[in-house]
Amino acid sequence: MQRLDSRDPDFEAQFARLLSVKREVAEDVDAAVRDIIRDVVDRGDAALIDYTTRFDRLDLTPDTIRFSPEEIDAATAACSGDALDALALAKDRIETYHRAQVPADHRETDALGVTLGWRWTALESVGLYVPGGTASYPSSVLMNAVPAKVAGVPRLAMVVPTPDGVTNPLVLAAAKLAGVDEVFRVGGAQAVAALAYGTATIRPVAKIVGPGNAYVAAAKRRVFGQVGIDMIAGPSEVLILADSSANPDWVAADLLAQAEHDKAAQAILVTDSDALAESVAAAVEGQLRTLPRTEIATASWRDYGAIVRVARLVDAIPLVDRLAPEHLEIESAEAEELAARVRNAGAIFLGAHTPEAIGDYVGGPNHVLPTARSARFSSGLGVLDFMKRTSLLSCTPEALRALGPAAVALGRSEGLEGHARSVAIRLNL
Amino acid sequence: MQRLDSRDPDFEAQFARLLSVKREVAEDVDAAVRDIIRDVVDRGDAALIDYTTRFDRLDLTPDTIRFSPEEIDAATAACSGDALDALALAKDRIETYHRAQVPADHRETDALGVTLGWRWTALESVGLYVPGGTASYPSSVLMNAVPAKVAGVPRLAMVVPTPDGVTNPLVLAAAKLAGVDEVFRVGGAQAVAALAYGTATIRPVAKIVGPGNAYVAAAKRRVFGQVGIDMIAGPSEVLILADSSANPDWVAADLLAQAEHDKAAQAILVTDSDALAESVAAAVEGQLRTLPRTEIATASWRDYGAIVRVARLVDAIPLVDRLAPEHLEIESAEAEELAARVRNAGAIFLGAHTPEAIGDYVGGPNHVLPTARSARFSSGLGVLDFMKRTSLLSCTPEALRALGPAAVALGRSEGLEGHARSVAIRLNL
Repeated sequence: MQRLDSRDPDFEAQFARLLSVKREVAEDVDAAVRDIIRDVVDRGDAALIDYTTRFDRLDLTPDTIRFSPEEIDAATAACSGDALDALALAKDRIETYHRAQVPADHRETDALGVTLGWRWTALESVGLYVPGGTASYPSSVLMNAVPAKVAGVPRLAMVVPTPDGVTNPLVLAAAKLAGVDEVFRVGGAQAVAALAYGTATIRPVAKIVGPGNAYVAAAKRRVFGQVGIDMIAGPSEVLILADSSANPDWVAADLLAQAEHDKAAQAILVTDSDALAESVAAAVEGQLRTLPRTEIATASWRDYGAIVRVARLVDAIPLVDRLAPEHLEIESAEAEELAARVRNAGAIFLGAHTPEAIGDYVGGPNHVLPTARSARFSSGLGVLDFMKRTSLLSCTPEALRALGPAAVALGRSEGLEGHARSVAIRLNL
Repeated sequence: MQRLDSRDPDFEAQFARLLSVKREVAEDVDAAVRDIIRDVVDRGDAALIDYTTRFDRLDLTPDTIRFSPEEIDAATAACSGDALDALALAKDRIETYHRAQVPADHRETDALGVTLGWRWTALESVGLYVPGGTASYPSSVLMNAVPAKVAGVPRLAMVVPTPDGVTNPLVLAAAKLAGVDEVFRVGGAQAVAALAYGTATIRPVAKIVGPGNAYVAAAKRRVFGQVGIDMIAGPSEVLILADSSANPDWVAADLLAQAEHDKAAQAILVTDSDALAESVAAAVEGQLRTLPRTEIATASWRDYGAIVRVARLVDAIPLVDRLAPEHLEIESAEAEELAARVRNAGAIFLGAHTPEAIGDYVGGPNHVLPTARSARFSSGLGVLDFMKRTSLLSCTPEALRALGPAAVALGRSEGLEGHARSVAIRLNL
């Protein structure tokens, strides 16, 4: 863990280094992914089955690529009642929050008689990638699937690898709860290729969303254009802005909730209190001792953790905007005022009783958020990611007469006489 | 030009070929672009100046990289009054249309006492790429800059190459009119690199938008992540859906307005009328003879043009959705009813008096629209492309008590004990 102090003369250089640290090693898997995609395009299900045997040690047939409704029901029945109740609460809250995001169509006729506006429509089909193994999170199924269904996507196809045939029943239960229409037991670049190009068993989709490993990320980049994709997620991060009123044990727990995700996760405390800085540093060390994922969290905190001391909390605002954290917690009596001054953050958690983990599961807002400083230019996942806007324009003959000459002038000024003529021919110009 | 008939037995195969035709040759410029970007990162303005000498045959100094306000004023003064009036009309209409797109913030407190919602903020800075030479379109400056300013972007920096020192005065006039804050006379991958990473003269931006050649497109792909980018535009396309009521000369003019853009542009007529099909085909040949850009339009119409005969116009709807055209014109008494059934199109132009060129210039809607079938999953440029959403969440102690146990249960079910503990520690669970 690094310590920085904004009053140090070389603070700017230190902070710039913190900003520019690369937390991900880009694995060069692009050539392998290209070959896998080509093979799935050429051989369809046969290729999908071969790669699943090779990478997941699981033998499929065209009939077992897709989970049957009975298998999904059986998996759901195998989950604990507590977990299912918690999932149902999460699903309801996520749905309510995202319903408020459904955009309105617009249409008006202006003084010239031009009718104009736009219309939002849902994508016709979406593919949802869900990782297998330890990073197979039912909460992520809800966070990706629920907004798609709220948007009105009629067909939602999920892929989830089941290495050695092992399935996470709660992932299937979440898929059922969220209204996922089809679930396939395949993963990796081969599953992305199948969603993008289609096979006999998996019909192609219009967009692919959801997190994955380096192969999945590379495959998504490659199929972009053929289909839409969501953002490529990087390691998770939290920035906690706290003053002396904060409980150091709570702050430490929140830092570690982030650090336990991944050795490349980043947890940063920014504070105006030396006492809080010291007590949080001590509390982190203490809590690390009993944390099950202590190896991961220790590495993250050691390599990427930071405590930044500022003279006043308000001095932290420009630092927050430069870091553009995925998650920003503010624990201070002035939380609202400080939040209002922040431009760049994926999500803001206000007050001491709003640990970021509430937002991961049951708060309602989406937990798929921009990482690696991309909150400067992008937003968390939402309903708009599953819809698109078509603009509408309609002129009466009078409206065309009013607007036409300007269009003709601009077309000619751009050397596009054909553009000008398509207007002029209607006006006998 | 190809002719297809939906009543032919092999129509599906022919239509599938039309769908899959690649209209762009991907130039392999990626290695060159990588080197240029690295050089601009290393050497800043010096590299920018060297590449401008080499590619644009123009010698710059750090003081002349940026256009001065006096140069921009002088360029504006050199434009014709007609062109400036037309630009002003276009700017006003684009601004009015896009103002209706400014999204609302949302905040509510639910029955449990959880306050939640979101806040939209403008990007802090945006770079606008404008091509030089013949594809340097003042209308595109307005279409990119006006929504950014409507969104509230405080800093809009434009780059436009001036090969041999030649400037398009109307491009500078459009930049001034749209409120562009800084204009730099550089282009190519080097200008994209400067906007993404910054030099002594050009401060970095958060997002880069605007069309460009293969080098610019490759550079935008490479800097994505460091900054946001807009879509990578492909060749333009129109699909005209028309019945026997349509005027064949008008339809032909609209097809050619598209075809004159680029040899790789695509213009398609879908009709239920043999008579219209024949008369449009003849009118296209006639109009091509006097079109200044006849060489381009002839190649486009020959290689990618199509006339598709359907039994009834309504049969065309599934074909439209599969093609997902950038521009869809509907010339029929049933235009509204047909439009309502279309899911995938970038923009729809309704009725015989709404040539697509009106939308290119003065209609109000944006002319930056999804190409190459990407209207299946993406929208035209708009205000939302220059804003991002930050979610907000705040729990009272009571709300945390109500939600906390479910979050603890889900955290544990996902093997993330640190997540569970960050909630449990606040509730003495």
